[in-house]
Amino acid sequence: MKIAMIGFGTVGQGIASVLLKKDLGLTVTGIADSRSGLMMREGIDLAAALERKRKGLAVGDEGTSPLDVVRKGDYDLLVEVSPTNIRTAEPATTFIREAISRGRHVVSSNKGPIALHLRELRDAAASRNVQLRYEATVCGAIPIMHVLEEGLRGNRVKSLHGILNGTSNFILTRMAEEGLTYDQALAEAREMGVAEADPTYDVKGIDAAIKLVILSNTIWDSGIRLEDVVTTGIDQITPDAIRLSEDEDATIRLIAEAIPERGICRVTPRLIPRNHPLVVNGTLNAITLTTDLAGALTFVGKGAGSIETASAVIGDILHIKERYARGA
Amino acid sequence: MKIAMIGFGTVGQGIASVLLKKDLGLTVTGIADSRSGLMMREGIDLAAALERKRKGLAVGDEGTSPLDVVRKGDYDLLVEVSPTNIRTAEPATTFIREAISRGRHVVSSNKGPIALHLRELRDAAASRNVQLRYEATVCGAIPIMHVLEEGLRGNRVKSLHGILNGTSNFILTRMAEEGLTYDQALAEAREMGVAEADPTYDVKGIDAAIKLVILSNTIWDSGIRLEDVVTTGIDQITPDAIRLSEDEDATIRLIAEAIPERGICRVTPRLIPRNHPLVVNGTLNAITLTTDLAGALTFVGKGAGSIETASAVIGDILHIKERYARGA
Repeated sequence: MKIAMIGFGTVGQGIASVLLKKDLGLTVTGIADSRSGLMMREGIDLAAALERKRKGLAVGDEGTSPLDVVRKGDYDLLVEVSPTNIRTAEPATTFIREAISRGRHVVSSNKGPIALHLRELRDAAASRNVQLRYEATVCGAIPIMHVLEEGLRGNRVKSLHGILNGTSNFILTRMAEEGLTYDQALAEAREMGVAEADPTYDVKGIDAAIKLVILSNTIWDSGIRLEDVVTTGIDQITPDAIRLSEDEDATIRLIAEAIPERGICRVTPRLIPRNHPLVVNGTLNAITLTTDLAGALTFVGKGAGSIETASAVIGDILHIKERYARGA
Repeated sequence: MKIAMIGFGTVGQGIASVLLKKDLGLTVTGIADSRSGLMMREGIDLAAALERKRKGLAVGDEGTSPLDVVRKGDYDLLVEVSPTNIRTAEPATTFIREAISRGRHVVSSNKGPIALHLRELRDAAASRNVQLRYEATVCGAIPIMHVLEEGLRGNRVKSLHGILNGTSNFILTRMAEEGLTYDQALAEAREMGVAEADPTYDVKGIDAAIKLVILSNTIWDSGIRLEDVVTTGIDQITPDAIRLSEDEDATIRLIAEAIPERGICRVTPRLIPRNHPLVVNGTLNAITLTTDLAGALTFVGKGAGSIETASAVIGDILHIKERYARGA
């Protein structure tokens, strides 16, 4: 199967390095980064492409734009892994729309288009009889979308609770373990590359809220928007609050929670028993689904990382390849 | 799709009660318990069948045997949920072989045939072009088989660690929480219906070892047998040992562990940090898969229960119905 990849940052390079190591029957015929594009019908030399990025060079020809690759590339499946813009969801939404309108499958790790336009994009994909998959948009390496569609057949999901943001979980873990203040823990997270220079999206709960929107709309097709999620961050949590929680053998975590039948959709710091399966440490993510038959199921794994996110993208690509690819 | 169900105990009755509540497009044309069988081409009245069992009656006609239902029944898929015999794996293995040789799909919750004869049964199913699925044999409601085949595509599983037996986990949890001796915790487990009158299989690690065999052979096709698993139970654990572990912020759990590249396949009580995702309380099960791309993933859920096991069986049935059923 031929794939074209839009975005060649952490995730895209992660995918390329996995494809170099494993023979998965995939040929990359197009790659674009933010400033250049490259198309080769016979397949791109991925080692050379990675080497160009390592040297700080453009991956391809600066006369070829990402949109050129989407519109003119020879591919069966578009891998959309460009940076997320959560206000406009562009240019990623345009890339995805164009690929679908060309009758191509799409796999995306991009939260913007899925959080803002899932219903439209899903309907467009259905009408063109192609697949749109986005496992990598939530919970990194945890195959939660596969579990929802494959593993829980026959079940109704009643609610979900999740630790969906690794940065804020790291900060809360360090505050509890070492008695640090929020500012101290944030500084440590920055030093370790766990928090960005501007950590607003993570510590204010916005990133978790975006993922909650994606999960809710996937499970319940509820049409929830980001502004519908009641969101409180962790930046007002004090060491005292955490100490008090520990006196009750509990701790504080930033919990994303959706319970449709009670009208609840929120991201807030919550007191939670220390031995609850959701209480994970450091940058781990966790999600608990409560179902009518299988009861409560919890899934824990790495929420981010180049290869971990690549794993989710590749799982989606292979899912489509095995079932829906031409000639499959 | 027409299904016949062999075994009408806890699991079989759980499946019947789910089918009564949910319209899943399944018609039960055959049911057998240990002493009787019932075949009805147009579909069996499940409410009446459940009522007969509640009154202590046979589910069907005592002149019809389970094997009659397997051999003569009009079904597309056999649901094999009769009691496990781990020494002989009979009569379940015969039922499964017969159904496959008739060209019928099989879904089983029966650990015996899968632990002892997986390769043979899988090959037979492949040669007849039918499906054999057994999600319910391990980790109850956790859809671990679906995760392995669907969610982790492209990954290589390097090792697995699991808490695969709810009874021994309950006993260890109560010893740690309340400082009980092994005998006290076992007595409590018996009172609560968590341990059987003869708890040997659970507390000696045998049940966990059987599940480890099934998982290992599914993941690595390693041909491991029960006697290859180094197995130590929890019945020699003292309150002192648990107290000492807690001084190191750890606890003791019965861990099933397979690491093929190091030749490790064992079930033993292990010291494990209290905040490790595998450390679950009470009768919960948990399993951690370590993979080359996705890193370590942990799955937690109920390991037993009538409806939870039914959930796993029904997930398998619907998987087959949607993909492989005649006319699908």
